[in-house]
Amino acid sequence: MSESITNQLQIIKRGCQELLIEEELVQKLSKNQPLRIKAGFDPTAPDLHLGHTVLLNKLRQLQDLGHHILFLIGDFTGMIGDPTGKNTTRPPLTREQILQNAETYASQVFKILRPEQTEVVFNSTWMDRFSAADLIRLASTYTVARMLERDDFSKRYHENRPIAIHEFLYPLVQGYDSVALKADLELGGTDQKFNLLVGRELQKHYSQTPQCILTMPLLEGLDGVQKMSKSLNNYIGINESPAEIFGKLMSISDALMWRYIELLSFESLDTIHQWHQEVESGRNPRDIKVQFAREIVTRFHSRTAAIEATQDFEARFSKGALPDDLPEKKLYIQGTELALPQLLKQSGLTASTSEALRMIEQGGVKLDGNKVVSKTQTVAVSTTVIAQVGKRKFAKIILLPDEDGI
Amino acid sequence: MSESITNQLQIIKRGCQELLIEEELVQKLSKNQPLRIKAGFDPTAPDLHLGHTVLLNKLRQLQDLGHHILFLIGDFTGMIGDPTGKNTTRPPLTREQILQNAETYASQVFKILRPEQTEVVFNSTWMDRFSAADLIRLASTYTVARMLERDDFSKRYHENRPIAIHEFLYPLVQGYDSVALKADLELGGTDQKFNLLVGRELQKHYSQTPQCILTMPLLEGLDGVQKMSKSLNNYIGINESPAEIFGKLMSISDALMWRYIELLSFESLDTIHQWHQEVESGRNPRDIKVQFAREIVTRFHSRTAAIEATQDFEARFSKGALPDDLPEKKLYIQGTELALPQLLKQSGLTASTSEALRMIEQGGVKLDGNKVVSKTQTVAVSTTVIAQVGKRKFAKIILLPDEDGI
Repeated sequence: MSESITNQLQIIKRGCQELLIEEELVQKLSKNQPLRIKAGFDPTAPDLHLGHTVLLNKLRQLQDLGHHILFLIGDFTGMIGDPTGKNTTRPPLTREQILQNAETYASQVFKILRPEQTEVVFNSTWMDRFSAADLIRLASTYTVARMLERDDFSKRYHENRPIAIHEFLYPLVQGYDSVALKADLELGGTDQKFNLLVGRELQKHYSQTPQCILTMPLLEGLDGVQKMSKSLNNYIGINESPAEIFGKLMSISDALMWRYIELLSFESLDTIHQWHQEVESGRNPRDIKVQFAREIVTRFHSRTAAIEATQDFEARFSKGALPDDLPEKKLYIQGTELALPQLLKQSGLTASTSEALRMIEQGGVKLDGNKVVSKTQTVAVSTTVIAQVGKRKFAKIILLPDEDGI
Repeated sequence: MSESITNQLQIIKRGCQELLIEEELVQKLSKNQPLRIKAGFDPTAPDLHLGHTVLLNKLRQLQDLGHHILFLIGDFTGMIGDPTGKNTTRPPLTREQILQNAETYASQVFKILRPEQTEVVFNSTWMDRFSAADLIRLASTYTVARMLERDDFSKRYHENRPIAIHEFLYPLVQGYDSVALKADLELGGTDQKFNLLVGRELQKHYSQTPQCILTMPLLEGLDGVQKMSKSLNNYIGINESPAEIFGKLMSISDALMWRYIELLSFESLDTIHQWHQEVESGRNPRDIKVQFAREIVTRFHSRTAAIEATQDFEARFSKGALPDDLPEKKLYIQGTELALPQLLKQSGLTASTSEALRMIEQGGVKLDGNKVVSKTQTVAVSTTVIAQVGKRKFAKIILLPDEDGI
């Protein structure tokens, strides 16, 4: 706890969406004791991607400042599943599955968090002992009207879409976790703000000093539009190979690059500010992208892996062959994939599918720097590829789902 | 089970507000097996009055038809009390208090119900074993929108008055009682219809044949306006003395008398129809009132007690002295009681309070036939008295709370 409070606050607030309430946090920091910092995780999706790491990075920074992380796995509700039975993708999990998922989590998060300052906790520990009467008492602390203020509930209510009553209980259970853990601070995505505030209020109700709240922005996926998520297939998994992470990061737009750097890079604010100035003065943003991609690959693999990924990538794109002003094309497709000849035609790289087929036969087509050998190759929806036809025609092609057409 | 289904239905439906769904009940009756009939009672108010007996009488009639009564004491919620802590009149009850209340209940209800066809059950038996997870699953069966359709919730929500979330859970707990009891039919007051329907739906959800529902009207209190209740002090308790029951019944208006007869008398519909005709032809309704009051006193005490009460009442009002066209006065008073001289003046029986005091001194004032001996006597709000000044001045005086003045 050697950092001054001002320095700590600066680190804590970097890249965050909102801090509530700053004065209270200052007071807590001034006690010069490690804070108990809660962050909740879903027990069903142990496959972490860069989107998750926005929050994990912040937790790591808090550990660097000497604080204690309560890594909460919400297994109590996970073991209930979707009790309406309507959502078949949320079957109840067994205790074995939960523990297995927790192991998978741990193996991933400890690439970022320090194990010695991380306590993995399960809310079933206290919620399994909760009786129906306890839950009724908990439910008495909150009103229907206030719960209906939550954005998604409000929307569904006014659109006459059903809200099952147990859905009102989940934010309370989540909030009670803060009571059980005596959390000083809770972190979550911006979409979690309402729930984090419930925790704050329940702590007051149980005569605890209410937790502060730090919300982090949601990272956009590779498409630059939607939130990064596995189901949208616009993500970079932290367990992906160095080449995949490097290649995917090199494929993002320049605008998105700055957003990723803001939320994911550990470089100092000064350095990032300098990069901006350099690009404004004419430096190729691709240089920055390479530097950033190397930082991320180094984080999840190693420095050596990052260097190899860079060399491999540059070799594949025959160093210097990739034009600086790579044209970008968005294709909206129906179904899950697009045949390569269609892709080449629709993106304007060939005049027709027959020209495309001929070019593939002649070995004149590359995807992400790799020569295409099969005429039946397809490209999946929600991916971005750099396609090359002949020596001089390049395009970055983003395949998006055509949702109207479904 | 000797009665034909048509006869049974006629008896079941007499005086009821609503039967849902008649065809289903016919089907259940046609199996010629005793039905499992649920009726729920609050564990906090074991002091039964005639208002409660509307329902109890119907249960007794069902027993006479051979059916089995599940007398449910809702002690689970009673032991929770009012968890918001706002309602100090609903503190949590201990198990000892509940059992004691149940004893008091039993001693009273078995004046009406047959013990050998009555099973007293407590919902804590199954609800105490309910976990928070079980309650979440139960809550998932119902939507917020449908719960907000309940009249009182809808009213409060639209008036921006708070509804605590646990209040949405109570109808579900009450409904689950029907599942636990495998009820064929549930009885309740008209104000309970929503909750009884929840029971019906939960039984469907748990793959049971849904219960039928029989709602009974709410009995008006002695004021003829509000629902009979202890807190409004407009009630006749079934443990009151024969003289009190008799006197209070004699004090009600003629219009209210017919309502009471409809809901409380066991006389045949033919007899009651005949009474109506006699009164229309000029018979004094007071004769019918006496007959009805004797029926009720006989029910809760004895035939002898009823005869004595009649004789005592008539002696006090010096047989025949009470005019047939007793004038009725409503006085709206502030506070909890009114001094007798004020009462006499305000009702017009004396010209002034000093005349009233003089008449009391001279022994010329009677209340309910009893000579008044104290000049400081008062009369409580929400009571009805027959006051007499001198030989010829009478009035029935109803003291009502002046709510605007509070």
